[in-house]
Amino acid sequence: MWSNQLTEALGIKYPIVQAPMAGGITTTELVAAVSNEGALGMIGAGYMTSSALSKQVKEVKEKTKNPFGVNLFVPVPYAASEDELEAAYQVLKPYRKKLGLSDEEVEIPDYDRDVKTFQDFIEVIVEEKVPICSFTFSLPDQKVIKRLKDAGVVLIGTATTVEEAMAVEKSGMDMVVVQGSEAGGHRGHFLKKNEESMIGLLSLIPQTVNHVDIPVIAAGGIADGRGAMAVHVLGGAAIQIGTAFLTCRESGANPAQKEAILRSSEEQIVMTRAFSGKWARGIQNQFIHEMSDFQFNVPSFPIQNALTKDIRSAASQQVNTEYMSLWSGQSPRMAKEQTVRELIHSIAEHEHFTCTHKR
Amino acid sequence: MWSNQLTEALGIKYPIVQAPMAGGITTTELVAAVSNEGALGMIGAGYMTSSALSKQVKEVKEKTKNPFGVNLFVPVPYAASEDELEAAYQVLKPYRKKLGLSDEEVEIPDYDRDVKTFQDFIEVIVEEKVPICSFTFSLPDQKVIKRLKDAGVVLIGTATTVEEAMAVEKSGMDMVVVQGSEAGGHRGHFLKKNEESMIGLLSLIPQTVNHVDIPVIAAGGIADGRGAMAVHVLGGAAIQIGTAFLTCRESGANPAQKEAILRSSEEQIVMTRAFSGKWARGIQNQFIHEMSDFQFNVPSFPIQNALTKDIRSAASQQVNTEYMSLWSGQSPRMAKEQTVRELIHSIAEHEHFTCTHKR
Repeated sequence: MWSNQLTEALGIKYPIVQAPMAGGITTTELVAAVSNEGALGMIGAGYMTSSALSKQVKEVKEKTKNPFGVNLFVPVPYAASEDELEAAYQVLKPYRKKLGLSDEEVEIPDYDRDVKTFQDFIEVIVEEKVPICSFTFSLPDQKVIKRLKDAGVVLIGTATTVEEAMAVEKSGMDMVVVQGSEAGGHRGHFLKKNEESMIGLLSLIPQTVNHVDIPVIAAGGIADGRGAMAVHVLGGAAIQIGTAFLTCRESGANPAQKEAILRSSEEQIVMTRAFSGKWARGIQNQFIHEMSDFQFNVPSFPIQNALTKDIRSAASQQVNTEYMSLWSGQSPRMAKEQTVRELIHSIAEHEHFTCTHKR
Repeated sequence: MWSNQLTEALGIKYPIVQAPMAGGITTTELVAAVSNEGALGMIGAGYMTSSALSKQVKEVKEKTKNPFGVNLFVPVPYAASEDELEAAYQVLKPYRKKLGLSDEEVEIPDYDRDVKTFQDFIEVIVEEKVPICSFTFSLPDQKVIKRLKDAGVVLIGTATTVEEAMAVEKSGMDMVVVQGSEAGGHRGHFLKKNEESMIGLLSLIPQTVNHVDIPVIAAGGIADGRGAMAVHVLGGAAIQIGTAFLTCRESGANPAQKEAILRSSEEQIVMTRAFSGKWARGIQNQFIHEMSDFQFNVPSFPIQNALTKDIRSAASQQVNTEYMSLWSGQSPRMAKEQTVRELIHSIAEHEHFTCTHKR
């Protein structure tokens, strides 16, 4: 029996969360379609402005009456020395040239500005009465948690280890996403010593469930009813799906990324720091391969992310997958070109899923 | 419903395989206890001589009438230059000194001798009518496979990717163990490009099941009925358990290793090449930490393994866990000090396990 606690708290029919993939993937069309089908649509606000978020929240509300959520990157202090920046510029120069980009300076992110944007996001969520908010890369401070809880927002933290899940629970969050090593995109670790923690869900879920009382949502490599049921029997309360939603028709991912995933096999999906300064999982390509040594010396997130931004954009526009960040989890063979409706129904119709989901 | 095909072919009651951990862990007491409880006991012959294997097979037969198996390392050609060897000697020197070991030369393994030993192992298996034989690190050649199949031995290969599982099936093996990234000890990859393939079981099992017809046995991070049922719903036919058997009373593991596992948490379990020249998962300690840069330059397996052998032995004898290879999977929090009977029954008594296992 899936946890009624979770589906009731989130106001959804199926214990399925669409992963809040940042960078243009979580279009209004995707988020609304997911929520309309009885799962939880999520806006990945990571790289947005607060006014863009406000606008999208209003659009989503027009397209669905069902609950949906927003995911925020919690700002973490960062800095890079002039030498680090110069070294990164030099290493990236040939890529800029190859893609026809000029050599002009890139705007470096500013932590204080990120904090201001984060506060603006919180105000948007409260004003627009967004029912659910999840966090990645750290825990917000207690003032933020209190403000959102007072506004009735359901809060979800992200953890990559049992210890991080316990910290999420202690912070007062209502639920925790445990991100297995299978997951695509950026790692959500926030305790420094866990930067390279890559725990498989088959280990992470039961060990976490043994140590926290809040519902555990499992993320990583889940793409069908079999994965959903595995999470269920391991003690998870819901699944979060990224890659399989990314390749859906409604997602805003670049068609070249969708095709690259549909063509890939699991052993081509690797970890890299080269694109953003933070470990993330995606399809091996020339950029990742050539940067494999230098990736340990790139400026930390989000500085390196800013330095590679126009490279990634230009590669996207030129449909050159060798220099794009092709984030994907470890189950690309299970991703399909399909509609959100088809994906959600294929999971919900799994014989055991429907059987145990009945209340 | 668990696959009857597998339990019938192996002649066992429960679809549970004891991982063939090499290096003195799979004592006769452990192997016989596992088989006597209705699971499959396995002798890890990896570092044994053929006469020692012959002796242990006879001992196990005296202690159980049930089927059991032997696991063999398939020899893969290796070599190290004088420079590589000298560099490794120099790096290991301080450890030898610290543990009170003399500086005398270590005997370097010889591939031709390994091949001879492997052939002797095959003869032992045929002569002693060992019912089951599994292989790690490569696939044996067709002559060996034919000889064993003609003798009625059930053959099991080990794979870390879908492609490797397909190669195992194509070779004529009867079953395949898929080793998830969660698994402790050495990686069983054998296609060169997959050396760093670390696929979580939640991704690996369903993708493999979609591509092979032989039964899939899942290994990595499984320690209780929840993990067993997860494997089942993902399409696996059986589970293989290592760490949770390692900490059982009957196992021959050093008590210091057992205690280290029982004290560990999942994020302390890391990957290293430092001990053996082959990637393996174990508890982080001083040796792994200090060797983290040099591990990429150590001679390949089994040469580095031979070079560190007396270091590991001395550390074991001196109960110094900082220089022992403390292999463990990613679920140390679920390992217990218990008997084989307690472990197997706790899995078999899981409500869903017994329910679906009934024929």
